[in-house]
Amino acid sequence: MTLQPRRHRFLIVADGQFGPLTSKTANSCIRYFPERIVGVFDRVEAGRTAQDVLGFGGPIPVVGDFERALALGATAVLIGIAPLGGQLPPEWRGWLKTALERGLDIWSGLHSFIGDDPELGGLARAKGVRIHDVRKPPPNLPIADGRAADVAAYVILTVGSDCNVGKMTAQLQLRDALVERGHRARFVATGQTGIFIEGWGIAVDAVVADFVAGAAEQLVLQGAEDADIVLLEGQGSLIHPGYSGVTLGLLHGSCPDGLILCHQATRDFIGDYHGREPWVRIPPLAELVEIYERAAAPVRPTKVLGICLNTFDMTEAEAAEAVRRAAAETGLPATDPVRFDPSPLVDAIVREALAAK
Amino acid sequence: MTLQPRRHRFLIVADGQFGPLTSKTANSCIRYFPERIVGVFDRVEAGRTAQDVLGFGGPIPVVGDFERALALGATAVLIGIAPLGGQLPPEWRGWLKTALERGLDIWSGLHSFIGDDPELGGLARAKGVRIHDVRKPPPNLPIADGRAADVAAYVILTVGSDCNVGKMTAQLQLRDALVERGHRARFVATGQTGIFIEGWGIAVDAVVADFVAGAAEQLVLQGAEDADIVLLEGQGSLIHPGYSGVTLGLLHGSCPDGLILCHQATRDFIGDYHGREPWVRIPPLAELVEIYERAAAPVRPTKVLGICLNTFDMTEAEAAEAVRRAAAETGLPATDPVRFDPSPLVDAIVREALAAK
Repeated sequence: MTLQPRRHRFLIVADGQFGPLTSKTANSCIRYFPERIVGVFDRVEAGRTAQDVLGFGGPIPVVGDFERALALGATAVLIGIAPLGGQLPPEWRGWLKTALERGLDIWSGLHSFIGDDPELGGLARAKGVRIHDVRKPPPNLPIADGRAADVAAYVILTVGSDCNVGKMTAQLQLRDALVERGHRARFVATGQTGIFIEGWGIAVDAVVADFVAGAAEQLVLQGAEDADIVLLEGQGSLIHPGYSGVTLGLLHGSCPDGLILCHQATRDFIGDYHGREPWVRIPPLAELVEIYERAAAPVRPTKVLGICLNTFDMTEAEAAEAVRRAAAETGLPATDPVRFDPSPLVDAIVREALAAK
Repeated sequence: MTLQPRRHRFLIVADGQFGPLTSKTANSCIRYFPERIVGVFDRVEAGRTAQDVLGFGGPIPVVGDFERALALGATAVLIGIAPLGGQLPPEWRGWLKTALERGLDIWSGLHSFIGDDPELGGLARAKGVRIHDVRKPPPNLPIADGRAADVAAYVILTVGSDCNVGKMTAQLQLRDALVERGHRARFVATGQTGIFIEGWGIAVDAVVADFVAGAAEQLVLQGAEDADIVLLEGQGSLIHPGYSGVTLGLLHGSCPDGLILCHQATRDFIGDYHGREPWVRIPPLAELVEIYERAAAPVRPTKVLGICLNTFDMTEAEAAEAVRRAAAETGLPATDPVRFDPSPLVDAIVREALAAK
């Protein structure tokens, strides 16, 4: 699947959830292609701007009336939230029908495929517009076979303390910095947001479980075709009760040469279990490094090259101190590549990639 | 899904692959309900009996002509091999069409769902016969939420050094021994063969990756409804490059109180990578115990209670020595519960289950 995000003007639907922590997909699209986004539909934050709500995104308006949102001139609706489990909230059906009737495409990363919905899929066909269910896996994925270990490119996978800590953003920032230095570096998406941004990839969490590692292998082979450094987007966490299997499949299938460990500095517990008592405590970074290196070792040894901290909710001074502490605790280069200079990590990657040749 | 294996007479199709190591599904069905199996279709071993080929199964005939196989009086065809990737070999289409035309049901554990095939599915509907694709996951699986940790039953998961080392067989043997001692023990199937045998379960390797742990949780909740000891079938291995994600999802989602580590005593490398150089070496048992306990610990600590060895390809003396060595290396009770007395493991399970109350 190859999409053309640069050809569209998007209306992002994030009703009731637009915010720094609750609309991950929306936020990353706003970060990486703000010029293509005409507005955000959210009845809670209506009247504000993306900048007001997120601290970035500039004057992109948040609109609380769907008709007014459509009047902003989008050519496609992009579903910008990822509810736990990925189901389509029933209330959205009316909005999506309206959008399709007005000739807008739909871009969705939900687990329930909108194109397979008889009513919405039928309407899209009748109107001649496209529904892109980017989480739909390609057919005929292989069982992993170790071929990812054979590519000439240096392969880096981001791993994390939890979901939603910045594993995709880290790779995009590192990609930009590496390309700026003249390296042939390529970001490879493994989740719906990354696919929205890059226009290709496989949402590995939506693949039948036996084929997750095979999907990772296929992505590495494809990414390595025209790159010397492949930056593969990580998913989940080895200590996340719901999604750890996806993380391990990705780790074993992609046979990475190096890992970047991502963490949100203020987070102490796995975040998806708010309803219960806090459940899984995130161990110290040095212990997480060991967890990932040990999990990879029986299949193919690899090592953590550095730490990417997400410090969006800290003051500048707190963030700098958190970065200093992460480096001291692990003995590894550390930075927040969104907020600070990514060079400590970029230097480490370039050094390791050259040494591996 | 609840099936009724006791109501059928099965013809097992295992063409070209009927053998001790190559037809895992066929072999387990022959071990656990031989009285329901009228024959095996395999052109390579035709003319022999199950006993000749497997060393068990008695006079069940192996037949090399599909018409002659159908004449044995089956009411259903059971697909008894699991090719890597689970696709339907093209040659089989003709046999399955013939079976459906003669009014036989089809029981399949392949990844490609036979009922979804337009030709075969349509033929089954036209003939009023059933195609049971037991790997098809139920709708609306949850994301794992930790509820498996709350059940009153003592939950045991089998884990392994590799695929196809006896994780299902171990649980079935332990279940029988526990029930014989008067315990309310229940086997819970997580793969196609276990579902064929028990008539219910979820093939977790066929679930969309995000929901593997949720499927495990749901199975534990269901199994615990009327049992004091739940014996959950394990899948794959944490060191298997292709399937490790399924294994970790099962481990985290099921929140087991104890683990039984299964290993084929003569196996040194992960078996699915014959085409390459031997790839992943199986570490010593004590190291595998540590790998599993460490992987579980961040989510919910558990411990390995004992070792199940599969010694089918060893002499009696070699097998006894392998069991003795496994116990000495790990300091844990060990046995081959098919060949020898399962008591060392049964004693350990009962002791731990009582201590946990």
